[in-house]
Amino acid sequence: MVNQTGLELRSLVKPDGALELSLVRLPIPTPKDDEVIVRVEAAPINPSDLGLLLAAADVRAATRSGEGAQTVVTAPIAPVALRALAGRVGKPMAVGNEGAGVVTSAGASPEAQALFGKTVSLFAGGMYGQFRKSRAADCLVLPAGITAEDGASAFVNPLTALGMVETARMEGHKGLVHTAAASNLGQMLNRLCRADRVPLVNIVRSPEQVQILRDLGAEHIVNSAQPSFRDDLVAALQATGATLAFDAIGGGKLAGQILNSMEAVAAGAAAKTYNMYGSSVHKQVYIYGTLDPGPIELTRGFGMSWGVGGWLLFNFLAKVSPEAEARLKARVANEIKTTFASHYTRTISLLEALDPDVIAAYSRRATGEKFLIGPNLAVE
Amino acid sequence: MVNQTGLELRSLVKPDGALELSLVRLPIPTPKDDEVIVRVEAAPINPSDLGLLLAAADVRAATRSGEGAQTVVTAPIAPVALRALAGRVGKPMAVGNEGAGVVTSAGASPEAQALFGKTVSLFAGGMYGQFRKSRAADCLVLPAGITAEDGASAFVNPLTALGMVETARMEGHKGLVHTAAASNLGQMLNRLCRADRVPLVNIVRSPEQVQILRDLGAEHIVNSAQPSFRDDLVAALQATGATLAFDAIGGGKLAGQILNSMEAVAAGAAAKTYNMYGSSVHKQVYIYGTLDPGPIELTRGFGMSWGVGGWLLFNFLAKVSPEAEARLKARVANEIKTTFASHYTRTISLLEALDPDVIAAYSRRATGEKFLIGPNLAVE
Repeated sequence: MVNQTGLELRSLVKPDGALELSLVRLPIPTPKDDEVIVRVEAAPINPSDLGLLLAAADVRAATRSGEGAQTVVTAPIAPVALRALAGRVGKPMAVGNEGAGVVTSAGASPEAQALFGKTVSLFAGGMYGQFRKSRAADCLVLPAGITAEDGASAFVNPLTALGMVETARMEGHKGLVHTAAASNLGQMLNRLCRADRVPLVNIVRSPEQVQILRDLGAEHIVNSAQPSFRDDLVAALQATGATLAFDAIGGGKLAGQILNSMEAVAAGAAAKTYNMYGSSVHKQVYIYGTLDPGPIELTRGFGMSWGVGGWLLFNFLAKVSPEAEARLKARVANEIKTTFASHYTRTISLLEALDPDVIAAYSRRATGEKFLIGPNLAVE
Repeated sequence: MVNQTGLELRSLVKPDGALELSLVRLPIPTPKDDEVIVRVEAAPINPSDLGLLLAAADVRAATRSGEGAQTVVTAPIAPVALRALAGRVGKPMAVGNEGAGVVTSAGASPEAQALFGKTVSLFAGGMYGQFRKSRAADCLVLPAGITAEDGASAFVNPLTALGMVETARMEGHKGLVHTAAASNLGQMLNRLCRADRVPLVNIVRSPEQVQILRDLGAEHIVNSAQPSFRDDLVAALQATGATLAFDAIGGGKLAGQILNSMEAVAAGAAAKTYNMYGSSVHKQVYIYGTLDPGPIELTRGFGMSWGVGGWLLFNFLAKVSPEAEARLKARVANEIKTTFASHYTRTISLLEALDPDVIAAYSRRATGEKFLIGPNLAVE
């Protein structure tokens, strides 16, 4: 019997500084005793996938050659961006942090055999392919009636939202601020904070985004494009007591503005005693995204009790106990159609993922748009 | 019997936006049972005193009126700086974080009585005055043969240097980076790190400062004014394994450059596996000073495992146990003439502290210059 094969997407940065996206056809591996093979039905394109997939290439200049499974897309990478990519030059990378599908083959162990035919979610990398091998223990079994599309985004956004709320608890903050708050993640965080009664300040950049959150029932929404932004933010921070922010933007002045507004609230509360070092209330901004890759600019008026830092889901999960992680994942599975539901605006095949027009669309990261790849949709 | 009186310096921000420095004559208080009165013989002007003393006023435009103890100096404060001072407008502030002197009167308790006639150091604020009341328990008794001048700076710089090394230990870093490293504090930190075998990278801004540290026997000295700065810094970080920096400057690009150089070392060590989120090595910069009050500008190339934050001695002391604090203070007292020695370039009276030419000199914060106030030197 000839091994079956499957297509997988590869992202390659070539030594000449070009990005090349292509499909490779590989034999489907035979699972070891404790492993399973998942036929991937749905894998989202998250903002966190785009970095690895597109390698900061100028996708407006993308060109395509070849046909069907032989399609190759090429796009130039600016020399300044290439420096940070040195570690991946010449190495074809599998892409796609998470996804879901059906177990089509299982190893001999009882744990693996128990998964045969089940719909499971994976957070394994390389999910933009037709088949993915996984340890049985790493599969999140979806409850009956939940489809692969329902469960495609069971890790990155849900665990990030839960991680933000857990981080606030672990570090002793009473409430949260979130920027780019109308995103898929932001909407999820609103549902979660509402369920868990955690005060949340949503910062957005347009009236349309204000409306998205208002329709969700969000209580504190601040539009940074308004002239009254600072006053609005101080009022929302006063109302919520939030001293921790998660920022998806990074570059520019926003992180500093948040710290200064938090300090205005904290210093106001302690107004009777002047302290040249500012309030002793610790104010923290975690930057978890790079919507603006420019420099982070902090204009100091927030005293000495403050921090800004990177926040990464993997680092968070490495910090919590295995029991806590299992508890968070079980909650995601149970609430995958409610608190942690994702909505997609378009489902594309692996071949469409290599179409320059489609790339232009999914690389925009527009609010309200979310793409799903169906790796087993026909490619030719 | 008429109460004796003493002069104290006061710093006042007036509602019209002017800084006013003056002396007030007040009765020497009677100590309660557990209190003592210290005749202050020596109190340093630390960078951390200048903020409260000068309130960011334009001291080049200072004008003096009156004579002797009635001298008043006035200097304008820029409107933009006034905002952060709202909490102290109209309130005359006593100044001087630390100093040393002789106990001239003691309360009835055995602890207070035991201090009578002793030379003690205080970290009490308001040390720019002839007499200071203190709880007996807050006095650090200096060993026999140690003068008030020797012990004048027994808290701010020594505990900051110790706090930096303790912070590195508590947060799991193998080595330290220090900026503005030729300062009085920087020299002390070199002696301490050498004694404790903690690898230290010194960042300075001129060949003269390189020489100061070389003469001290410092091993890793990097001059940020050299074109080879980045390469030199990476080499020093590689040699020391330092992943924690204490930065006295704040504004500008330096904090980001340090993080990027630390990441270059960490990513180099992990070069075999490409990770788009950068290394998992946590890189931290604590900003403890404001030599450059401009915006902090972080140009990101340092992955997601990083933090920048404020560091304040008071916050550090609030975090450690009372036993640890007592241990640190005992070490300072024992090594006040060696590891924790300070050197002064000029001793001035309270009246000289109000002289516009002298103010211009001590407000420059020049490397190698350090002023001591002798509050009981004759003022008229």
